[in-house]
Amino acid sequence: MNNEKKIILGIDPGFHVTGYGIIKKEGRTTYLLDCGYLQMASTKPLPERVHIFYDFFVQKVVGCLVTDIALETPFLGKNAQNFLKLGYLRGILYLIAHQHHLTLHEFAPREIKQSITGFGGASKDQVARVIMQLFPKLHEQKKQDVTDALAVTLCGLWK
Amino acid sequence: MNNEKKIILGIDPGFHVTGYGIIKKEGRTTYLLDCGYLQMASTKPLPERVHIFYDFFVQKVVGCLVTDIALETPFLGKNAQNFLKLGYLRGILYLIAHQHHLTLHEFAPREIKQSITGFGGASKDQVARVIMQLFPKLHEQKKQDVTDALAVTLCGLWK
Repeated sequence: MNNEKKIILGIDPGFHVTGYGIIKKEGRTTYLLDCGYLQMASTKPLPERVHIFYDFFVQKVVGCLVTDIALETPFLGKNAQNFLKLGYLRGILYLIAHQHHLTLHEFAPREIKQSITGFGGASKDQVARVIMQLFPKLHEQKKQDVTDALAVTLCGLWK
Repeated sequence: MNNEKKIILGIDPGFHVTGYGIIKKEGRTTYLLDCGYLQMASTKPLPERVHIFYDFFVQKVVGCLVTDIALETPFLGKNAQNFLKLGYLRGILYLIAHQHHLTLHEFAPREIKQSITGFGGASKDQVARVIMQLFPKLHEQKKQDVTDALAVTLCGLWK
C-alpha cells in the first residue's frame, strides 16, 4: 500500500504573470488544492515585485503545507534581460524551498511535455488540452499560464 | 552644512565568492565599517547557497544599520547559466533591499571605473590600485573581490 503524502507547488514564473498549481497526493488519490496566477503591475519597481512574489508564495507554501516545489528549467531566449529577470524569481523560489525544507524538482520543457502528453515535442496547446481534460473547471482567465503551471505540478507528481 | 547620513553596502555577487564593503558617510566624513567576502562551497546545492547568501546579507544590513545598497549592472558573458545564476543572487538582494527599505543603486561597469579612476575604460587592476590607496589595510585574501565591491560601494557614495 502506498500511503505517501505529497503536496506539490508547481510554478511557471514570469515578471508579469506567474501561474501556479498546488496538488496533493495521498496514497493513490490526487486533489487539486489551488491554482491560479499572480499578476504584478509592470509600473512597480523590480525590488517591490520580487518582494510581492516572495510573500505570495511563502503564504501558499505555509497555507497549503506544501512539501515539494516543481519548476521548469529555463532556457536562454532572445532577450538576455528577461532571462536575467527570470533568474531573480528563481532565486526567490530557491530561497523559499530551502527556508521551508521543500524538495525541489526541476524539469526540462521536453520532459514536461513528454510526461503530460506522451510526446516531448508537443505544442503548448496540446499540453493545455490534456490539462483541461484533467481539470475541466479551470477559469478562463490567464488559462495558458495556469495550465503551464499545472503541467509542471503534475510532472513533479508523476516522475 | 551637510549632515546627511548614509550607510552603503556595496556587493559584487558571485556563487563562489561574493565581495562586499560597508561604508558610512556622516556629513563630510566617511568610515569603512566592514568589508570582506562570503565564500560558498560549490558542493552545496544551489538552494542552500541562496539561503546562506540571504542570511549573510540580512545580518550585515541589520547589524550595520545599512540604508543603501549598491550593485553593478550585470552583462551577459559567455556563459548563459552563470548569467542566470547571477540573477538568483540579484533577486535575493532585491528582496533584502525592499524588505529592509534600502535605497538601491545600480551602476554600469564603465560608470564605476569612471567614478573611481576618472577613466571609464580602466582595467580591474587600476581600479584595485586606487581602492588600495584609499584603504591600505585591506587583507590580502580575495583582494580582487573585495576591491571590486568597495569600488561599487564608493560609487554609490559619490554619485
